[in-house]
Amino acid sequence: MGQYSLFANVHFGAGKAKETGVLCRPLGRRACMIADPFFQDSGTLKEIQNALSKQGISSVCFFDFHSDPDCTEVDKCVAFIKQEACDFLIALGGGSCIDTAKAAALTAQNGGECWEYCGQVFPDGSNGVMRRPEKGALPLAALPTTAGSGSEANKGCVISNRALRVKSGIGSDCLFPRVAIVDPCLMTGLPPRQTAYTGFDAFSHAFESYMLNTTTYFSEALALQSIRFLGESFVAAVQNGGDLAVREKMANASTLAGMNIALTDTSVGHVLGQPLSALFHMVHGATLAVTLDSIVEWLLPTATEKLARVAAALCPALGGVSAAQQAARLPELLRELKKKTDIGGRLGDYGVKKSDIPCILDYVEEHVGLSSPVLTEYAKAPTRKDLEDILHASF
Amino acid sequence: MGQYSLFANVHFGAGKAKETGVLCRPLGRRACMIADPFFQDSGTLKEIQNALSKQGISSVCFFDFHSDPDCTEVDKCVAFIKQEACDFLIALGGGSCIDTAKAAALTAQNGGECWEYCGQVFPDGSNGVMRRPEKGALPLAALPTTAGSGSEANKGCVISNRALRVKSGIGSDCLFPRVAIVDPCLMTGLPPRQTAYTGFDAFSHAFESYMLNTTTYFSEALALQSIRFLGESFVAAVQNGGDLAVREKMANASTLAGMNIALTDTSVGHVLGQPLSALFHMVHGATLAVTLDSIVEWLLPTATEKLARVAAALCPALGGVSAAQQAARLPELLRELKKKTDIGGRLGDYGVKKSDIPCILDYVEEHVGLSSPVLTEYAKAPTRKDLEDILHASF
Repeated sequence: MGQYSLFANVHFGAGKAKETGVLCRPLGRRACMIADPFFQDSGTLKEIQNALSKQGISSVCFFDFHSDPDCTEVDKCVAFIKQEACDFLIALGGGSCIDTAKAAALTAQNGGECWEYCGQVFPDGSNGVMRRPEKGALPLAALPTTAGSGSEANKGCVISNRALRVKSGIGSDCLFPRVAIVDPCLMTGLPPRQTAYTGFDAFSHAFESYMLNTTTYFSEALALQSIRFLGESFVAAVQNGGDLAVREKMANASTLAGMNIALTDTSVGHVLGQPLSALFHMVHGATLAVTLDSIVEWLLPTATEKLARVAAALCPALGGVSAAQQAARLPELLRELKKKTDIGGRLGDYGVKKSDIPCILDYVEEHVGLSSPVLTEYAKAPTRKDLEDILHASF
Repeated sequence: MGQYSLFANVHFGAGKAKETGVLCRPLGRRACMIADPFFQDSGTLKEIQNALSKQGISSVCFFDFHSDPDCTEVDKCVAFIKQEACDFLIALGGGSCIDTAKAAALTAQNGGECWEYCGQVFPDGSNGVMRRPEKGALPLAALPTTAGSGSEANKGCVISNRALRVKSGIGSDCLFPRVAIVDPCLMTGLPPRQTAYTGFDAFSHAFESYMLNTTTYFSEALALQSIRFLGESFVAAVQNGGDLAVREKMANASTLAGMNIALTDTSVGHVLGQPLSALFHMVHGATLAVTLDSIVEWLLPTATEKLARVAAALCPALGGVSAAQQAARLPELLRELKKKTDIGGRLGDYGVKKSDIPCILDYVEEHVGLSSPVLTEYAKAPTRKDLEDILHASF
């Protein structure tokens, strides 16, 4: 039993970014390029704008957003899109960039302010109903520059409201990018630390979506393939970021894991990550890496078969031992992965105190709810006490 | 390097057909149901029509087509759609039914005759240019009743022209069904022989698409997952067709394999199958089963790693031996599969004579061409002599 919807139009390979002009021709005549500030005045950006220009597409650039984009930054972007009379968007950047573009594409098309479409809590303290994007969204082309968010291949975006200290998001079929251009050349410059953080994001998408009971034969195939390729490329991408073949494998793993969120969802890791990010400004990938092995240890007695498949995908050399033995090795494999990618921190290293745990749990109960399907459909539905134990184990 | 586009909106599980009304509500107000004649006057058909009716959708039925549908049957269907002023289509049947519906949905929307969109050869003997479906296609819901064609999940349809003795088809993004309803309850009545034939179709989709060099990490994941589940369910589905769990696994394997054709393509088996079907009226599944082990034996020295993965997916018990040993076991595994599913025939059993081989090869050269990417991008690009050897070995 189940259901999934997916739209994918993915072009991938080294040098594909050069084809952005041709690939965007069906999307519109005037592009708003939302690009990571890193690319401002870069050759890459100019090359893409030239490629657009050759196809008769004019473009303007918007750089005015930050990591974990705020709804007010999206609103600024929408005003810019209208002022410049753009008819489609191009995102060149990591997950924050693509998500800013998605939220702007939707808000520009439907009117109003961004938070109306993602907020469950409003500035006056009321719990509101999210506005539906009846008119869809402006067309979007996504060029990811990290192998992490997978946002180029799914229908979600994550938006923060710093004034309310809430991280929320929008999920809608209209948010599938019309074209994803996955070019590993755009990723070779990413520093080791960001490569590691974003890699744990990709791993968590594959892992969490697979551990949901709503996983299907389709999503299982994508999740395990993604984990297999992460196992072959993650450490190498951190240690030798200039290796194009390694970056390409990571990029594909991330895109597959990103699709998988459209097929199922994320779960415990991302749910705990929300307050860690909204309240303590931890980097998204760090919020996931820090609790990952504790979550797996908590799951261990319950979901042996699935955890064994994850372990075997991550480390094929494990073959030959029983499923229980494979599963039992997974927390250790993940700790090794963190060590090799130099992501060693515990929660305390990010300024979180044990006395903050109740406040983190309150956030989860208020903004997600323990009866949300993303938690109740997990291989093991967590109680508040379970989440508390996982957080304690992550210090 | 590569590219893929995919649209999927798949609802699956026992009893899902009952939700056809709700799921079709966004598609239109008046449905043309194209159904296998087997369902005429059936409770299943009435139940679906009642479900539509409850949603305010009226429906009329069209049963006037045969296996390997002819373009003239599609034209009759188009006339019926217009006469009845239908605004969308529902296909309830096997691959021939869904393909009739796809071709009709496209022709009805764009005008003219079906063969204009699929023929490379025209009645006057000229080689024409296929007409492009500029206006897309009427929306289509597909309810497959066999686990074979995978047509519910891809953008192709195969249409014959009996007057010209040619089998061709259409491939276009507009042919992705808007919704696929994969209900194993619709499949439990399929007799063992048809279950076996259609199962070899599903296997061939997964196998051939994976053996193309254009396979991606994405299509590889789907292909091997499909083969894994076929390994677990195919024989059981033939021997005990009433087992819903087994039928559901087969159905999922077939849908995944069908998607995979949209990601890559089919190859040698389907290319040889075209003349066997067009000239000798062999059932599609039989054309594939009869050459399958010969094709694998011909591939063997070339594509060891890939063949080993296929063998291991089909029969996980093979694990522990070398890749070369796994690959070498594949022809035997496939012969065993044919034996257990009671598909024992050789080419001679279907009325084909060895003296027909040149004529089969001429058909391939004329209607596909040895320089077509579906052949040149195969793990081993076949020469005319290679195809001749494969056919000889299939007698």
